[in-house]
Amino acid sequence: MLVLRKPYLLYLGDAVLKSDCKTAFGLRDWCGQDVIGEWSHPAAKVSLGLPRLSPAEAARQGARSIVVGIAPTGGVLPDYWQDDLEAALLAGLDAVSGLHTRLTSLPRLARAAERSGVRLVDVRNPPRAYPVGSGRKRTGRRVLTVGTDCALGKKYTALALTRALQSQGAAATFRATGQTGIMIAGSGIPMDALVADFLAGAAEALSPDNDPAHWDVIEGQGSLLHPAYAAVTLGLLHGSQPDAIVLCHAPDRVMIEEYPGYPIPPLPQVIEDYLRAGRLTNRSIRCVGVSINSSTLDDDAWRRYRAQLERELLLPVCDPLRGGVDAIAEALLAA
Amino acid sequence: MLVLRKPYLLYLGDAVLKSDCKTAFGLRDWCGQDVIGEWSHPAAKVSLGLPRLSPAEAARQGARSIVVGIAPTGGVLPDYWQDDLEAALLAGLDAVSGLHTRLTSLPRLARAAERSGVRLVDVRNPPRAYPVGSGRKRTGRRVLTVGTDCALGKKYTALALTRALQSQGAAATFRATGQTGIMIAGSGIPMDALVADFLAGAAEALSPDNDPAHWDVIEGQGSLLHPAYAAVTLGLLHGSQPDAIVLCHAPDRVMIEEYPGYPIPPLPQVIEDYLRAGRLTNRSIRCVGVSINSSTLDDDAWRRYRAQLERELLLPVCDPLRGGVDAIAEALLAA
Repeated sequence: MLVLRKPYLLYLGDAVLKSDCKTAFGLRDWCGQDVIGEWSHPAAKVSLGLPRLSPAEAARQGARSIVVGIAPTGGVLPDYWQDDLEAALLAGLDAVSGLHTRLTSLPRLARAAERSGVRLVDVRNPPRAYPVGSGRKRTGRRVLTVGTDCALGKKYTALALTRALQSQGAAATFRATGQTGIMIAGSGIPMDALVADFLAGAAEALSPDNDPAHWDVIEGQGSLLHPAYAAVTLGLLHGSQPDAIVLCHAPDRVMIEEYPGYPIPPLPQVIEDYLRAGRLTNRSIRCVGVSINSSTLDDDAWRRYRAQLERELLLPVCDPLRGGVDAIAEALLAA
Repeated sequence: MLVLRKPYLLYLGDAVLKSDCKTAFGLRDWCGQDVIGEWSHPAAKVSLGLPRLSPAEAARQGARSIVVGIAPTGGVLPDYWQDDLEAALLAGLDAVSGLHTRLTSLPRLARAAERSGVRLVDVRNPPRAYPVGSGRKRTGRRVLTVGTDCALGKKYTALALTRALQSQGAAATFRATGQTGIMIAGSGIPMDALVADFLAGAAEALSPDNDPAHWDVIEGQGSLLHPAYAAVTLGLLHGSQPDAIVLCHAPDRVMIEEYPGYPIPPLPQVIEDYLRAGRLTNRSIRCVGVSINSSTLDDDAWRRYRAQLERELLLPVCDPLRGGVDAIAEALLAA
């Protein structure tokens, strides 16, 4: 498993648009206690509202890693970013990135990391081969967020559900399966970058045996309905052996995004497809709620949509950003 | 896609047991026209009954590759095998292997290959990253062999079905997805070694657009019922977009092998599970037959088993080794 060193200094490069800094804002919002400050190039126009600390100053205050919190246009890492990251490495920080360009592929950074005895961590890189899945039932409880499509709130829902469970007094751990999730959690496994044979085995390793009442809240990936990514979804589902799933959906999503000809079926059918597939490794799997990204609905439309869906599915329906997911956490703990 | 150079010289090392030489026998039986001879260490006790040719002599007769046709005990490549493979490389042959130990990891062989301008081909290594799946429907027809478990005849069935289709006058190509299949076909993609995100995309690349009446017969991998490997199976199923599946089964297999607690459900349910999953990328997918490895049944028991299954499923039931798969080929061409 990838394990990162916290606390973090968040790096914003020369960001002009907030929308390029989703990773940094996500880290600030979801693991703020692990972030001691921000740093950026003088040309940057974006701030997270955190203390501005040079890498050397951050290191003095206890930071262990600088995290690239911005996705550069075109994916290329500008030279002056490398200046900043090199300075951080030489100050004793690990450098952590989820960019397509691997930090380890940049000779300047590789040399600085070696000289300084610190690490370049590309969170897209799975650290090693995992054993193949065993199918053995593990102790402890697990809930997996699943989706009608990619990019509609599976990570966000899992994070919100972890907090809701904890605030209701349950022991709960967020388990990350994608790059931003891994940065937030400080550990995890990038499922989509694994060798296919080890998908289920890696998912088993991600949520090991635990106390009987402990909940692992596992970040879902892809969708069983997706013509390109369903395999990743299925391997994660089988290896997670979830006791429960939460279906994530956005009501404006009628087709798989960028895949015309792949309509999203009615939600009861989607839920049944997930349960059917999940029963292979956990016969008592059930769906405990639906998490909706309702940003395209006004308050009235959301109330109506939600009420109708709750009547149809007989399940709690929540938007983590519009009232939270307490009802889903309650349903999990009640069962 | 991996592409091998034929014809082959088959290498048997110091084999004592025929059972260690399954790859070599498979190549002799399934692509005999591409094999010009065999070579082995003087200590070997196994022969394929082919002309015995030294690597230099084989090269003179037109061989392009020496293929390791034996799985060594313990997986270690003995030194004197390396002598033979080095001689073959220096004689101008590629060396091809499906062993866990990569040929490219052996410095002696790497040096000889470079000096001689030939290739070390480890067929477990996928050659490159593929694009992600597009979900776009391709021209031509496709049939995929699927199974209730691993290792019960999916490759053999696909090879037999390719021949049966060809003998009935149809244009048909075997598409290999595992190492032995790739050696037989001379090209293919080792699905289980791919990065998970590219499974469906690679399967799409494996069976590209073709003539409307042409059949790609795609070698299946794993099983949707397998707690470790179902993801590979699903990615291959989605990317293949098969018009038809042939279910492979062995009647003595009541549990997934080495996975106690994972019983094999009744075949009608298995077929329905595959069709349900396959409909995502091909709505007219159907099952055209069942291929049985009946080696544990005597003639009477096989007749009874087959008659009962045909009545139950209303599909042709064949054993490729006991009467062939002509009935399945006919069912494919009739529809």
